[in-house]
Amino acid sequence: MLIPDRLFPVDPQTRGIARELYQTVADKPIISPHGHTDPRWYAENQPFTDPAQLFITPDHYVFRMLFSQGVSLESLGVPRVDGGPTETDGRKIWRLFAENYHLFRGTPSRLWLDHAFEDVFGMTTPVSAATADQSYDHIAECLTKPEFLPRALFERFNIEAIATTESPLDDLGWHRMIRDSGWQGKVVTAYRPDAVVDPEFDGFAKNVEQLGHMTGEDCSTWEGYLQAHRIRRAYFKEFGATSSDHGHPTARTENLSASDAAALFAKALKGSCTAGEADAFRGHMLTEMARMSLEDGLVLQIHPGSYRNHSGPIMSAFGRDKGFDIPTRTDYVRALKPLLDAVGLEKDLTIIVFTLDETSYGRELAPLAGAYPALKLGPAWWFYDSPEGMRRFREMTTETAGFYNTVGFNDDTRAFCSIPARHDVARRVDCGFLATLVATGRLSEGDAYEVANDLAYRLAKQAYRL
Amino acid sequence: MLIPDRLFPVDPQTRGIARELYQTVADKPIISPHGHTDPRWYAENQPFTDPAQLFITPDHYVFRMLFSQGVSLESLGVPRVDGGPTETDGRKIWRLFAENYHLFRGTPSRLWLDHAFEDVFGMTTPVSAATADQSYDHIAECLTKPEFLPRALFERFNIEAIATTESPLDDLGWHRMIRDSGWQGKVVTAYRPDAVVDPEFDGFAKNVEQLGHMTGEDCSTWEGYLQAHRIRRAYFKEFGATSSDHGHPTARTENLSASDAAALFAKALKGSCTAGEADAFRGHMLTEMARMSLEDGLVLQIHPGSYRNHSGPIMSAFGRDKGFDIPTRTDYVRALKPLLDAVGLEKDLTIIVFTLDETSYGRELAPLAGAYPALKLGPAWWFYDSPEGMRRFREMTTETAGFYNTVGFNDDTRAFCSIPARHDVARRVDCGFLATLVATGRLSEGDAYEVANDLAYRLAKQAYRL
Amino acid sequence: MLIPDRLFPVDPQTRGIARELYQTVADKPIISPHGHTDPRWYAENQPFTDPAQLFITPDHYVFRMLFSQGVSLESLGVPRVDGGPTETDGRKIWRLFAENYHLFRGTPSRLWLDHAFEDVFGMTTPVSAATADQSYDHIAECLTKPEFLPRALFERFNIEAIATTESPLDDLGWHRMIRDSGWQGKVVTAYRPDAVVDPEFDGFAKNVEQLGHMTGEDCSTWEGYLQAHRIRRAYFKEFGATSSDHGHPTARTENLSASDAAALFAKALKGSCTAGEADAFRGHMLTEMARMSLEDGLVLQIHPGSYRNHSGPIMSAFGRDKGFDIPTRTDYVRALKPLLDAVGLEKDLTIIVFTLDETSYGRELAPLAGAYPALKLGPAWWFYDSPEGMRRFREMTTETAGFYNTVGFNDDTRAFCSIPARHDVARRVDCGFLATLVATGRLSEGDAYEVANDLAYRLAKQAYRL
Repeated sequence: MLIPDRLFPVDPQTRGIARELYQTVADKPIISPHGHTDPRWYAENQPFTDPAQLFITPDHYVFRMLFSQGVSLESLGVPRVDGGPTETDGRKIWRLFAENYHLFRGTPSRLWLDHAFEDVFGMTTPVSAATADQSYDHIAECLTKPEFLPRALFERFNIEAIATTESPLDDLGWHRMIRDSGWQGKVVTAYRPDAVVDPEFDGFAKNVEQLGHMTGEDCSTWEGYLQAHRIRRAYFKEFGATSSDHGHPTARTENLSASDAAALFAKALKGSCTAGEADAFRGHMLTEMARMSLEDGLVLQIHPGSYRNHSGPIMSAFGRDKGFDIPTRTDYVRALKPLLDAVGLEKDLTIIVFTLDETSYGRELAPLAGAYPALKLGPAWWFYDSPEGMRRFREMTTETAGFYNTVGFNDDTRAFCSIPARHDVARRVDCGFLATLVATGRLSEGDAYEVANDLAYRLAKQAYRL
Repeated sequence: MLIPDRLFPVDPQTRGIARELYQTVADKPIISPHGHTDPRWYAENQPFTDPAQLFITPDHYVFRMLFSQGVSLESLGVPRVDGGPTETDGRKIWRLFAENYHLFRGTPSRLWLDHAFEDVFGMTTPVSAATADQSYDHIAECLTKPEFLPRALFERFNIEAIATTESPLDDLGWHRMIRDSGWQGKVVTAYRPDAVVDPEFDGFAKNVEQLGHMTGEDCSTWEGYLQAHRIRRAYFKEFGATSSDHGHPTARTENLSASDAAALFAKALKGSCTAGEADAFRGHMLTEMARMSLEDGLVLQIHPGSYRNHSGPIMSAFGRDKGFDIPTRTDYVRALKPLLDAVGLEKDLTIIVFTLDETSYGRELAPLAGAYPALKLGPAWWFYDSPEGMRRFREMTTETAGFYNTVGFNDDTRAFCSIPARHDVARRVDCGFLATLVATGRLSEGDAYEVANDLAYRLAKQAYRL
Repeated sequence: MLIPDRLFPVDPQTRGIARELYQTVADKPIISPHGHTDPRWYAENQPFTDPAQLFITPDHYVFRMLFSQGVSLESLGVPRVDGGPTETDGRKIWRLFAENYHLFRGTPSRLWLDHAFEDVFGMTTPVSAATADQSYDHIAECLTKPEFLPRALFERFNIEAIATTESPLDDLGWHRMIRDSGWQGKVVTAYRPDAVVDPEFDGFAKNVEQLGHMTGEDCSTWEGYLQAHRIRRAYFKEFGATSSDHGHPTARTENLSASDAAALFAKALKGSCTAGEADAFRGHMLTEMARMSLEDGLVLQIHPGSYRNHSGPIMSAFGRDKGFDIPTRTDYVRALKPLLDAVGLEKDLTIIVFTLDETSYGRELAPLAGAYPALKLGPAWWFYDSPEGMRRFREMTTETAGFYNTVGFNDDTRAFCSIPARHDVARRVDCGFLATLVATGRLSEGDAYEVANDLAYRLAKQAYRL
């Protein structure tokens, strides 16, 4: 199924250059500095449940596509908010998936799945209705073997370092268990404080109160609240954290005076912020986080622009993260100005911005990252973590921001078996892009080898300080 | 003039794959589920007037380009609102066109014209000032022959089904005449209710009154008005309609309570809606139409985002549809939410959305269509009904929405002789896209043949229920 | 370093066509109708100071990239507003540049620099830390020779005509000196009236007063002010001006009544305009300038959409034009309507619009330019003056606006030695685009030769009346 020259340019000479470049980076260790795998896997090192639980039910890329063509979420085992019945038989779920496998034609999900089936599970028959049981049995059988336990796969995937994402309210117990186990796999956490920086987050005031308890700070005061963040960030650093992560609806930032910020915080605690004030508070907290980053060295990641849980009925019936997060237009030029005026010229600070609005790459983000020392561009992300998305990312950013204001690839995934596939796609697409530059006289072949290694390995390691 | 491998990728191996794919779909019947040809042509089956009337004077793609370079609309025979003199000599108009034929270099109009001249009229000499009279005479001579009558061309074009577009106030007399004639060509209507759903439409209240007369409903009441729509939709279905079509300035939808909707309707009838209220009413009517679609099975088409009649002076002197409809930025994420919350999860409903804002493909429309079962993406449309537009459409939508949340091609044209050319362009570009996926290991060759047929024929037939 | 087939398509057959096309335009004279070289260079014809002053310190493309990666502006010799110390040793600046030359990989700056080093200065060793002194010495040595004086380079670059840009308050002394010198190089001025049409420009009222002194008109009145513009425009025409140039933050235009305009002008002189009124006044002045263009034949250029001096700290410390002008989303459809309603149908008027928001090319600008006789599209500009930017420009505009609603290339640069490189890049990319059209059957080879010449030479000359 997988062809060796996949994703390379079609012109034979350019393809040859891409292949040569790729061969020098194909086996580089994986740096996965931003993702959502479950630290419990590495801590407990128990077998994955079944093929459906591994590939379908928890992966909104996969069940979203099936749902869009009329397959119900219940039949795919996605849990209902009301606890109503949903399919629990992994084999039945797998059959539905296999019957509809043609829906994934031309999508990156298909690339990742085929890669995992063939490369991780050694399957040689394409998935289809006819072979559904056969493939289910094969994978299920594999999952019982020691070489398919999470840590074994981690090592087989050649992961040098992987980051998970936790709330400040998380006690990092799984991370502690990993550390205490003596296993050498490098699994680090990342600081994702939505629950305690977003006044519109469910239970914000209670969350902040809990933050106070956890840190011994008086979180009813602005200064105590900031100090509590500093303490938790330090705690996260003990478990390897090198970054914080912020997924706001917009890219808005603010740089308020201490008294204005304190007043807004007090309102937020009372639950009396307007939508605009809540947005301003979130925006101001990015600037506060950046200031803490200047002290403690955490890299600040901003992931804006998703309209979360777009479907009311789906949100009611199934809750968050069900494939209904839809990108929106995002303005970065005005939105990031307060943050950049405050800290954008700091050479020792790294702010990584991602976008779901590709139009901002050439127009806004590359010019900003090509000017401000603190600002770097995250890779093509989410819907754009794909061959065409990655190609457009390079075509739209390189001429203005160059390669060195970008930070290599990250997979941002909770689908463990897709990690090698995703990094492989990125390495192939980047090598194809570099090969095109070489073949058109825009880059020397010697430079291309160096850049290929930078994009596949070095820049992620350097930018995320891993 | 036409080269056999036109529009295929240039790399020889990829071109070879594209050619093989194309050969399997090149002769498929044409499904034209959305267009604006005149049903009178098929009803009366009279010869087309002259070459200028066939190719130039009614086609805003063609006269717009000439006008942009200084050729007056009067000299091209475009009628003035004040009835003032305009050119009536087809030959003179044709000469102007031929002298300026170089202006169309690189445009899809040029592709369609050359295709029609060569393939439909068997012309072997390129159009130019020097050959203007010769080409005029040749086409004029053809038009007198029986094999160039509308029905003969319809059959020669291998049209399996074509939809025209009519107002609810149209008595569908031409469609009745076609049916009564016993001719077997499948010409169906489509329900386009702008005149009776847009409070800002010229004569809205009178139009609604007429709708009441035609249906025997009391259209001064909200319920009577809705019932009148149901009756007219049923009538349109008798003449083959499988879809309704809605061309609003924005993609705004609303889902008002019955009492709010009724109140707004009353205001609309009195002509006292503000611009915002008129927009809300149009938006709400989309949701009402979708509810009727759930009952009667018509496919709902939404074509938003055109700033109609941009030039004040042109609108005053020549009226609507003179090439001055300009695309604008369109937000779909917020705009479609009320409609999608109301009916977006219905598996038996088909809502097809078109766009003139390409930036929304990857960012908004593909993610929405890749999640909501009711939503499908219309093909590259209007200014994007072109090789580059179609390529970008596939590149920007496939990775997120796949192929099966799209609906094949439709030509949306009133230029009869361009229909085979337009479908041929779409088939070639799609086969080229598929060939590139095959050559880069993203699609198996076997799957590509199936998808090629889906895109050229099956999906349009299925989505439009034709 | 430079490969002969650079920037051509990679497919051998298509590359062959591109090469043939390019060979017919490679040596055409350069028409540079819009740029910012210093007329003093041509007037005094003195040697350029040193390599750093020629290539680094005044070029925000170059120092911006270095700054984004942590090199201070002071160390690159960029002057501070407070007159504080900055590096003055050209060799030290050059070494910093050479050490960091890898940052430019994949950027157009690198293409231009390599082209100038090899083609203008005959350098054969790549720039790097190791060869920094060698390259510095080589260029410095060249600059002392007569064949590297500005006029000699002008002639060697085969510049048929170049425009500089001056304020109405400029006495055009350098242009007079050029004319009086008897040198035959065609250096013309262009009318850039920001200082006297933008109420928010530093010293607006004083500037208008000075305009009055220079023209003998009473510029405290609206009519006197307009007349003063007419007089200065006529004066600029004496020094070859064929165009005016307008770089507003947005594309807003207005067409106010004379009394409203006069009232706004009075407010502007008093410094009491709101931000909105200032914007309206600028917008109205575009329409006034267009009316004057109808009288005097100057081409009107509009360059909107840059958020100037985005970084507060950089603006305070280093002032304007330090690489912190960031593109923003720009709406053209509504913004240009007042202007286009007023004068858009005039065949004898040429309005050239540029954009920094690529999304507007296919959606807004190509449809507008493909309809309004007065409107033409400027080439890919600033951040898009690059191979990918130029390719996207053609791909997104040609199908709707054709080639003949565009105006060829202009370099818009103050980097003298980059001029031949920039025009060469444009010619190569355009020939590559044409070759692709030929190879895919969208353009005949004969037509392609004609269009290649149009894009490389004829259209710029014709549109700018040079």
